[in-house]
Amino acid sequence: MCLDPAVTDPGLYTVIFENDRLRVLEYRDRPGDRTSPHRHPDSVMYTLTAFRRRITADGRQVEVDLPAGQVRWLDAQQHSGENIGDTETHSIFIELKEPRPAGSPAPTGALGPGGG
Amino acid sequence: MCLDPAVTDPGLYTVIFENDRLRVLEYRDRPGDRTSPHRHPDSVMYTLTAFRRRITADGRQVEVDLPAGQVRWLDAQQHSGENIGDTETHSIFIELKEPRPAGSPAPTGALGPGGG
Repeated sequence: MCLDPAVTDPGLYTVIFENDRLRVLEYRDRPGDRTSPHRHPDSVMYTLTAFRRRITADGRQVEVDLPAGQVRWLDAQQHSGENIGDTETHSIFIELKEPRPAGSPAPTGALGPGGG
Repeated sequence: MCLDPAVTDPGLYTVIFENDRLRVLEYRDRPGDRTSPHRHPDSVMYTLTAFRRRITADGRQVEVDLPAGQVRWLDAQQHSGENIGDTETHSIFIELKEPRPAGSPAPTGALGPGGG
């Protein structure tokens, strides 16, 4: 099963740049929209609008409420999301293609974007 | 001599996120502003406003005219820049900390951001 969000939700995720080191995704949705389960590699997200989302994985849920102009790190993870706010979501994800280097801090296991 | 743009031009470049894999810089300037010579590692830039800039390095110059919402790759390079337009520049840079992997395409030597 392909868990690439550009494949699972092509109406929401768009690949706007790609080279051998990284890929940049643009994400846009509207209130009530949900994503299919998908997988992010280690990524950094930049919020272009404020939004409120519920992220779900393996029975765990977190709510994420962010203003525009925020950067958040996302440890590699599989999840699905839902826009539970009343505004459109617009954000970009920079996905790292290289494996996590030896000696790098272990993933925190945090669901959704980490603290800012 | 330190060529970190967050050190050479702290009024223009701000570190908004950093971990062991990458650093995110926010850049803001006004028409007529110039940066000191500084060095970027391999980076990807996302434009939050339209802007027009002149990039200078080693006697070479290029002019860059970009709309908002564009992604551009920047091969590691040293340069300085000048806002030669009539709008404020606002952009973010995601700097990769890991060395270019073996077998990766060689840098193009392009000055300034590459083609989109």
